Parts: sequence; structure tokens; C-alpha cells
Amino acid sequence: MPDGRKGYRGVALRKLEEWDVAVWADVEVDTDRGSFRGVILPRAETEDDLHVVLKLQHGYNLGVRADRIRRMHQVARKEAAYKIPEKEFPFDSGRPRVKLLGTGGTIASRLDYRTGAVIPAFTPGELYGAVPELADVCNLETEKLFGIFSENMTSKEWIAIAKAIGREIERGVDGIVIGHGTDTMHYTGAALSYMVQRSPVPIILVGSQRSSDRPSSDAALNLRNAVRAAAYSDAAEVMVCMFGTTSDRWALLHRGTRVRKMHSSYRSTFRTIGDVPIARITPESFEPIRTDYTPRRRDREVEIDAVFEDKCTILYYYPNMQPDVVDALVGAGYRGIVIAGTGLGHVNRALFPAIERAIAKGVAIYMTVQTLWGYTQMHVYDTGRDLIHMGVVGCGNMIPETAFIKLGWALGKTRDLDEVRRIMLTPIAGDLTDREPFDGYVVLQGGLPEVEAFLRQHPL
Amino acid sequence: MPDGRKGYRGVALRKLEEWDVAVWADVEVDTDRGSFRGVILPRAETEDDLHVVLKLQHGYNLGVRADRIRRMHQVARKEAAYKIPEKEFPFDSGRPRVKLLGTGGTIASRLDYRTGAVIPAFTPGELYGAVPELADVCNLETEKLFGIFSENMTSKEWIAIAKAIGREIERGVDGIVIGHGTDTMHYTGAALSYMVQRSPVPIILVGSQRSSDRPSSDAALNLRNAVRAAAYSDAAEVMVCMFGTTSDRWALLHRGTRVRKMHSSYRSTFRTIGDVPIARITPESFEPIRTDYTPRRRDREVEIDAVFEDKCTILYYYPNMQPDVVDALVGAGYRGIVIAGTGLGHVNRALFPAIERAIAKGVAIYMTVQTLWGYTQMHVYDTGRDLIHMGVVGCGNMIPETAFIKLGWALGKTRDLDEVRRIMLTPIAGDLTDREPFDGYVVLQGGLPEVEAFLRQHPL
Repeated sequence: MPDGRKGYRGVALRKLEEWDVAVWADVEVDTDRGSFRGVILPRAETEDDLHVVLKLQHGYNLGVRADRIRRMHQVARKEAAYKIPEKEFPFDSGRPRVKLLGTGGTIASRLDYRTGAVIPAFTPGELYGAVPELADVCNLETEKLFGIFSENMTSKEWIAIAKAIGREIERGVDGIVIGHGTDTMHYTGAALSYMVQRSPVPIILVGSQRSSDRPSSDAALNLRNAVRAAAYSDAAEVMVCMFGTTSDRWALLHRGTRVRKMHSSYRSTFRTIGDVPIARITPESFEPIRTDYTPRRRDREVEIDAVFEDKCTILYYYPNMQPDVVDALVGAGYRGIVIAGTGLGHVNRALFPAIERAIAKGVAIYMTVQTLWGYTQMHVYDTGRDLIHMGVVGCGNMIPETAFIKLGWALGKTRDLDEVRRIMLTPIAGDLTDREPFDGYVVLQGGLPEVEAFLRQHPL
Repeated sequence: MPDGRKGYRGVALRKLEEWDVAVWADVEVDTDRGSFRGVILPRAETEDDLHVVLKLQHGYNLGVRADRIRRMHQVARKEAAYKIPEKEFPFDSGRPRVKLLGTGGTIASRLDYRTGAVIPAFTPGELYGAVPELADVCNLETEKLFGIFSENMTSKEWIAIAKAIGREIERGVDGIVIGHGTDTMHYTGAALSYMVQRSPVPIILVGSQRSSDRPSSDAALNLRNAVRAAAYSDAAEVMVCMFGTTSDRWALLHRGTRVRKMHSSYRSTFRTIGDVPIARITPESFEPIRTDYTPRRRDREVEIDAVFEDKCTILYYYPNMQPDVVDALVGAGYRGIVIAGTGLGHVNRALFPAIERAIAKGVAIYMTVQTLWGYTQMHVYDTGRDLIHMGVVGCGNMIPETAFIKLGWALGKTRDLDEVRRIMLTPIAGDLTDREPFDGYVVLQGGLPEVEAFLRQHPL
């Protein structure tokens, strides 16, 4: 067995040797933190000599610290299942059709047995090789639209994705999955929520916070959840499907207009802000958390309204802000400014003359709250009332990122500022709601054991 | 009894008449949501005819919906206690000295019996009249530094507060409370964390989310908690003391550098980001949640370093950002830019030439994450590595608002950009930590009954 412990070295390699197991062995591992069952994966990372990486039975990869392993016992060999080359994705006329649109980033990957290298998987056959469970769910088609890091997304890409979605809906797919880097996934989610109106099928954005060659990758599970949501979910909305909690057993479906990345590296990074997510999803189930989603339809009607004004910006207010910041944006030709204000939607009085100058020049200025949760309430204090009087418009509980995308979209549609205002204040895809539900602030997040323990131990 | 039901009308007035009770009656109220005991307060708000407002025994005001009241029973009359005019704050040589510095906003108020008007309370005597429990805790002195809405705070006010703190510490006070509007309280918290170094006593920022004439006001309780923390807390740090959860029984003490306002209107708006709060506080207790705070000292040494560079700004990155935004800031003479980047600290490639031009002109550019939770990790992807190569410096888990304040402070101290970098990357007052604790993301928040109920009812 050449390269039977491919990529392992140091402590981890010695542990495999000690228990006479190798890569692709299906093993039971006892550690001082519990027991696990999974297949030993080859390693591509040479820096790490401390972990043995297991692919657990539900598709999740786990790095087990070698120095915590007490015993390893081989149950079977899985080599054949992993060594097979790309196979044709099995077609079954009884399964829904799902289209996966690639935009960049690694969605899933295959491990090359001979070299231990990680090969990005994208075609249906490659994905089938990497995540064979997909074939239980749907007939998968894939198309790479482009391949960029998500921070480099521009209005051009948002428009291209929207148009591709329109085309695929007309072609008859039952659901669409968009592979996307997580950094700006929520901006694209908002853009597609406006550019694609009245979709009859689910449109699911998915990515991974940990690339698929790493232990603890969420890539395969997120993809399975997203494909399941696209194929079977009853919610025909633009949604982000990502890891829901510290548990690896379920994901959440978030509305594209109400979701935000809230942690730079955790897998449970996406949160619905000021509302509750649409549903909990697993590779086997769709459980609605709310009932007011837009349901799936059988028709093929969809309205693609893919426009965007690039001279639109976010101004993040901070105390001590000088008016020259506003003047500089107007001088650079910006036509739309979304302010992330403090409190109920405030800026300092020093900015007022610059804001008046901007509005006099026809710049559309909209207010959101940098607290992220809550509403603009600009009638409560003098500051807000003065801003309203100048023509600044409060966006309620639209999150700043969503208001920015909506304003760029509205300014792309029309130069009539009254019409822009009408569009901005019309709720679309749940971007603006009358009430925040009771648990809209604390967030459907789960998993607070240490906090709960503190509160239990320190009752009042 | 003239004006015996002052300010009441409609449903609420009829309910008082039905049970023959009036303002200042100490009553037991049975409702379909439970029973309450408290003193009926006069109303100043004429819009609301639905609520009877009670001052509960622990000082919290509660608005009880009149249509839910089944019975009201007068236990006693409290009129005398509320009608007394301003009294001298009782002095007791055994109690700690606390100095309350006013900056604006209403900290507490007295209800004028004859008119029902709300009179802001600020002098020790007025505060004693409004919140007599303060006299059990400390000898209170007050000083109004200025009176402005907190969005209008500038570096001038931050510097004035820092200097007043230095003076009061030298005068021998045992703790300082700063009354402050909540909107920008965390910016001031960060500014004082840098401008006041090595304080021997607690410095507590406090405010209220609901003004003291409203039912459900948090003003009196926050003030009692803050004064208690200033007088007795062992943590000699700059801290925000505000409502901790949906319960009205405790408050949290947050580090000034790690706290952020997270809801525009809820009382439980302040959260420690990426860490756990320092302590839970009640009017009777100080319970440390962490042990690594800086302890109180008996000496009177303190270092006031009150400087700030006003040409410092926050650039909130969004995909599709055009380079002219960066050029405009540089053109306006900005010397420091804190970017709130996406993901691990990224912006798009289109900005790279503008960032290079800015750095060539001597602009200090620092990177934070707009996810708020998590760390910049700019070595992971090409984008981050390229930004590092250009001279952009990652700020780890410093929150964007704190990094902005720290950069303004550092640029106020020196024009040497290497020294600025050294200051920025040196942890001060917990602004930059090596590790995020397990419960640093989900936040010590408590009170998730609906979420917990959902998870219990839908086990996986």
C-alpha cells in the first residue's frame, strides 16, 4: 500500500503507525473527549502534524488531536468509494432538477488519492465523486458563470447571476443553487432579492467558511443542505443556506435581504437580523420556522430587473465626523448615500449643511441604524426631525447593506427621486417589516451552554 | 384631591376611576398577565391612554395595559414621599465618594406633582429626590460638563471628560459616573479607555434607553447600578453599565473598548463583542464574570493623555466600491482610515491603486472586520496578503469603532507612522485579545425563551 498514510507526519503519523491503520480506513477512534467513527482522510496540509482527519458518517470532516487518541480500530476499508474517478452523475427522472451556478470559491473538492492534493470539484460528475449523497436528492446540472473572490463582486456580476437565474427558471429547473464566497454573500443575496422578482423556485446561496481540504470543513454539508433546499423547499425566495449553530446537524435558510455575516471565521457566521430565519434545513428535511414565506409555484414566470447605479455608497457615521466627508462623496459624483447612523438614525449637526448641499444637488440620502437591530425612528428627537426636514429618509429596519443595494437598484431603475423614495419604502422580499418578532434580536442561534451554565449557577 | 389622576385619560383614566385609586396610591394590581405592586405615577405623555404606569418596588417603572387590569387595590398612599421638594443629599463619612459628570441627556427625573411635568434631575439633591436609594450607596457629587445629544460629541468633549476625570481622581473620589446619551456611549468609552490610562478607580458610563418619564424607563435602575459599580466595584476600568437582559434585575459592566450598541431601542442594547462582560451588577452586588480586570487601587495616580487627530475616518467597505471613495478621503486631507472590511479583512482589487496612492502620501490605513465578531486574518488569502504588502495593517479583533478611536488617538500623539503602528498593535484596555472565549460570539445575553422553546419542540 504505497502512500498509505499520505500527508501525515509527526505525532499524527506515529499514531496511525501505532494502531496500524492507514488512509481510507473506516475506523472507530476513542479519545479522551469521546469516541468517533469515520474514514481517515489523506492530508494535504503539511504544516499540521497534530491531527488525524476523519470524514464522519454524516459527511462532516473532523480533525482529532493525535495526542488525545487512546485507541483506533479499523472496522472496514473505504478505499474503493474514494478512489473512483469522476463518475457520471446518475439521472433519475423522478428527482427534481437543480442547477448549480458557480461564481468563485471552492464549493467542494475531491482528494486525489495518488498525490493527496485537493482538487476543486465542480462538474456534476466531480461533485458526485466528492459528495455522492447529492445524487439521492436531485438531478444536478452545473455552470461556472465566473470565478472570483467574493470581495471582487460588482454590479456586473450581480446582473449576470440574475440573468442566468431567469434563463434557468425558463428552462424549467426546480431550484437554483449559487456557489459563492461567504464574505459578500449577503450583499449578493440582497441584490438578487431585488433583481429577481416573483421567482417560482428557491434560489439558494451557499458557500463554506472552511475549505473542504480542512478538518472541520462545512463545505460538503452546506452543499447537501443547499441542494436539498433548492430541490424540495417550499420557499421560493432568495435565501442563504449556511451552518446554523455550533452543531453540525442543521443549517438555517435566511432571507437574502435580512441576513448578515457576523463572524469572520466561525461556520455559524450568518444570522438573520431583526427577524427569524425562514427554516431549518438538513439533508433530509425542511422545517419552516415561519409561515409567511413566498411558496413555490409550478409556472415559469419570473421578472428579471437587473440594473444598478454604481455611484451609490454607504457612509458609516461616527461621532466627530467632519462635513468634508459628505462633500467629498458628492464631489466624486455619488448619487445615492446610505448613512449608517447612530441610535434611532442620527448624525451630528456639523454635517447638516453638507447634507443640505448634497440634497440640493439631487443626491438621494437614506438613513439606517448602525446598531443593525432595530428601527430608524427619526421623529423622536430634534436631530432626526431636522434630518427628515432636510429630506433624509429613514429606512426602518432595513439593514445598512440591504438599503445600500436597494438604493443602487432603485437609482438604476429611475432618476425620479420620488419614485426612488416610493421603491425604498415599499417592503420587498422582507427587507422592511412592521414589527420585530420577540426573538428577532437574540437570534435563532442555539448552543449557549457556557452562558446558560453561568446563569444557572448564578441565579438572581 | 385636585389632579388626582394627573395625565390620565381614556381607558386608563376610566380604570383608575373604576377602582377608585389615584396617582401616588401604592396599589396591588391584578392583571391577566400576573399581579404587581407599586405606586401609580402621574403621566406626562398625552398620546397614550392605554397604560397605567406603576413605579415598582425595585425602582423600575412598568406600564400596565388598562384593559388587562382585573382589580386594583390601594394598600397605602406614597404621596408624601414623592411630593417632597429637593432635599440635601445626606452625607455619611463611611460611604464612598462618587462623582457624577453630566454630558447631556436625562439621567433621571422628578415628577412634578402639581403639573405632572417631568423635571430633569441632576444636582445631588434633585437626584436624591428622584432616586433616594442613591444615598444608601455613596456620597454623591455632581458636575455638569456640558449638555449635548451624544451624536454631537467631538474630540473636544472626549478630551474635556478625560481631563475632568483626571482632576476628580486627584481630588480623591472613589469612583466616577458619566451620564451620557446611549447612541455614541461606546465611542466615548473607547476614547476614555485611551485618554485615561491607569485609573485607580472605576469610570462608569451610564445612560438610559427610555427616558425616565416613560413606563419601562431604565433610567433609575441604570443609575443605581452605575453608582453602585463606581462606589464598590473592584474593577478600575472604563466601563459601560447598562441593562443586561430582558430582565430588569441586573446590569452588565462592559469594557469600554469592547462594547457596542446593538439595538436602536431595546434597553438591553449594549453587548460586549468578541469577549465576555466584566461583571454582572445590581444595586446590591458586583459579581465578576471574568477575573482579569484591572483592580481598584488606593493611590491617586492616573495618566491623562487626551489628544485626538480629527482627520481620521471609518471606511465601510461594500462590494462594488469604486476607488474614487478612497481618493476623495485622501483629497480631503484624511491622515487615518480604518476600513471595516469583509470576511477576514478584505476589499476589492479595484481599490488597490487608490490604497497604494494613499499610503504613498502617508495615510495610515488599518483593517478591521465588518462582521464585528472575529479577527482580521490577512495572511490567509491573496487579497489580504496583497493589502499587507501595500502597508495596510490588520487590527485583529479590535471592533471598527474602537480601532477608529485608537487610530485618532495614536495620530494625535505622534506623526511617526511606525510609532502609530506600534500603538495600534499594542493591546490597551482589552481592545485586542489573543483569543475569543467560547461564549464571546453568542454573547452573555440570557432570555431566549422562544428560541429555546423552538429548539426543545424540534429536537434533532
